[in-house]
Amino acid sequence: MNNFTFYSPTYFVFGKDQENHAGQYVKRFGGSRALIHYGGGSVVRSGLLARVKASLEKEGISYVELGGAKPNPRSGLVYEGIALCRKENVDFVLAVGGGSAIDSAKAIAAGAVYDGDFWDFYCGKPVEKALPVGTVLTISAAGSEGSPDSVITKEEGMFKRGASGEALRPVFSILNPALTQTLPAYQTACGVTDIMAHLFERYFTNTKDVEVTDRVIEGLLMTMIHEAPKVIKNPDDYQARANIMWAGMLAHNNCCGVGRDQDWASHCIEHELSALYDCAHGAGLAVVFPAWMQYNMNHDVMRFAQLASRVWGCPMDFQHPEITAQQGINALRQFLRSIGMPLTLKEVGGKEEDIPYLAHTAAFGNGNGGTLGGFVVLKEDDIANIYRLAL
Amino acid sequence: MNNFTFYSPTYFVFGKDQENHAGQYVKRFGGSRALIHYGGGSVVRSGLLARVKASLEKEGISYVELGGAKPNPRSGLVYEGIALCRKENVDFVLAVGGGSAIDSAKAIAAGAVYDGDFWDFYCGKPVEKALPVGTVLTISAAGSEGSPDSVITKEEGMFKRGASGEALRPVFSILNPALTQTLPAYQTACGVTDIMAHLFERYFTNTKDVEVTDRVIEGLLMTMIHEAPKVIKNPDDYQARANIMWAGMLAHNNCCGVGRDQDWASHCIEHELSALYDCAHGAGLAVVFPAWMQYNMNHDVMRFAQLASRVWGCPMDFQHPEITAQQGINALRQFLRSIGMPLTLKEVGGKEEDIPYLAHTAAFGNGNGGTLGGFVVLKEDDIANIYRLAL
Repeated sequence: MNNFTFYSPTYFVFGKDQENHAGQYVKRFGGSRALIHYGGGSVVRSGLLARVKASLEKEGISYVELGGAKPNPRSGLVYEGIALCRKENVDFVLAVGGGSAIDSAKAIAAGAVYDGDFWDFYCGKPVEKALPVGTVLTISAAGSEGSPDSVITKEEGMFKRGASGEALRPVFSILNPALTQTLPAYQTACGVTDIMAHLFERYFTNTKDVEVTDRVIEGLLMTMIHEAPKVIKNPDDYQARANIMWAGMLAHNNCCGVGRDQDWASHCIEHELSALYDCAHGAGLAVVFPAWMQYNMNHDVMRFAQLASRVWGCPMDFQHPEITAQQGINALRQFLRSIGMPLTLKEVGGKEEDIPYLAHTAAFGNGNGGTLGGFVVLKEDDIANIYRLAL
Repeated sequence: MNNFTFYSPTYFVFGKDQENHAGQYVKRFGGSRALIHYGGGSVVRSGLLARVKASLEKEGISYVELGGAKPNPRSGLVYEGIALCRKENVDFVLAVGGGSAIDSAKAIAAGAVYDGDFWDFYCGKPVEKALPVGTVLTISAAGSEGSPDSVITKEEGMFKRGASGEALRPVFSILNPALTQTLPAYQTACGVTDIMAHLFERYFTNTKDVEVTDRVIEGLLMTMIHEAPKVIKNPDDYQARANIMWAGMLAHNNCCGVGRDQDWASHCIEHELSALYDCAHGAGLAVVFPAWMQYNMNHDVMRFAQLASRVWGCPMDFQHPEITAQQGINALRQFLRSIGMPLTLKEVGGKEEDIPYLAHTAAFGNGNGGTLGGFVVLKEDDIANIYRLAL
């Protein structure tokens, strides 16, 4: 196990109707004038925004609003939010939505107290200061409700980049699984895939002696495998939604990723798909991850066999562990298909002739230095091969 | 799953030599004059205390010292610590040691900023304010390095009671697994048993639909089963110590206990043993927990069968799940014996004739209202029966 630090000071408020207490938590964490930041119209139509506003008013907290955060949230709206915070003397940013609204809110919170261009943080400058951010989560997927990370797309050039820093951890996050019950099955499955991908990115490591984090990751993966089919079948299954929601937070606040090198190539390989074809991030991951596993299985057959045996329940072939390893990858494909996810590049609108461009951009775009990944270091050719395996 | 809140704002610093940075963290979390609180002579003899002091001096942090915290830490030393903090204008309490030193430090930190008797907090008054506490952990066991809890024994009457409150969460905890390498095998095994008991207390619940926390608990239990024999065999196994140390924190900071009712009868039943016979808490738990399981197995055979199958790898008997459930309890007994733990009351000095007293005190002493437990509500007779099962 490697040395590490771990700091997750977010106050999590979990359960039915908890969004009605948002105002109390804004107050508790020092807010008196909030920016409420959200995405599309669903939080308006569902009445959620009105309930959140009412709870702020009840506590005497004034607010301004900024909607419009999109999937793959854009820099333009961030600049708008920063200007609004300054003009209105906002001292707290409250995100209501999924990963996009939260990531956008984090960018606004960092930019509002920074003299330079907020994009500096997305080019490697550590975020040391930000307005406090709170969240009311509506989608189990990104894990941004408990993470110190934010991903924003710069409109000039469509660069998709990440910022990180302890100041970006939400001070509180309200997790009401019932708020996710209105999500369509496809979006739910995309979220499930994203959560599982966050676990796989941590699972595939060359660090030895990491039994504790291996076991927690495996337990969270088994939870997803057990609960996801229930919500696909019955979107109103509150209990299954609740299990997925807490798993999604634990998957990405890094309590199960500490002390081990991580990979993250698949996320970068996927980002090119959602950038070029505008597919959902989770759908892109369903295409990329099994192909990435297939391509890299021989790097550490026993790790893939461990995953297959412990998580998917494949019988261990002690003479030919590669057979067990392969069965695990097959099981993942079958599972993703069963919850309605695509498995091929074509299904997300991808074309074989785009592969050279995709591979080059994945390797060299977005500040990448020509290689991706920590478990196996991939070059442009490897990345192209992985896209081809997914055709 | 029940509604819940979860807040674990401790900054964890994990790995070799990290105690040499204690001063930086005291400074970061606002300390300028510290009380260093520790237990017996081992932290002095090992040179650990000297290293911690040097790191404080390097950062210009002055300090006073108070040693002498014992297993089952006493109120007398807490009063002494509180007086010292006031006299010396201490603004930070740094515990160097295991659960006893940390619990004692927490009591001092709460008492130092409270006008009344600190014991009020151990009679049910919530702890809302305390000096910041930091820890340098030397034993994987109690989980106090990441918990909001403290247990103190009042010398007048030998009442052993707990206090709880967010203000008692350490602001930082330094976890260097190498510091536990000097522990004798017996103490190591007691710590392992305590960690597993913290997991069992959360596992045995009547709350339905708690797959995510079930799976994390099971993963942590499997980690203990995998790693503990290694450190018993080879006390210098840093990697196994590291896995146990992180598992011990996760087992008790409550990330795997949220959203579900918990039990905690076994801890109360054990407290009477360590109070009367002065045995180690972990050793008492090794005696009590298998007996508690045996006594309560029929309350929910399928939960015991799940534990047996998923954690101990017992083959599921679908026609007679009680056979599988029993095999799991047997496996726990064998495991505890294999790491050198006692399994009977006699082995910790217990006598059959004491049972009526033990059962009565467990049920009615320490502020208990005549019953114990949440999974099965136990009365005095039940508690006596459990002690008898452990004879």
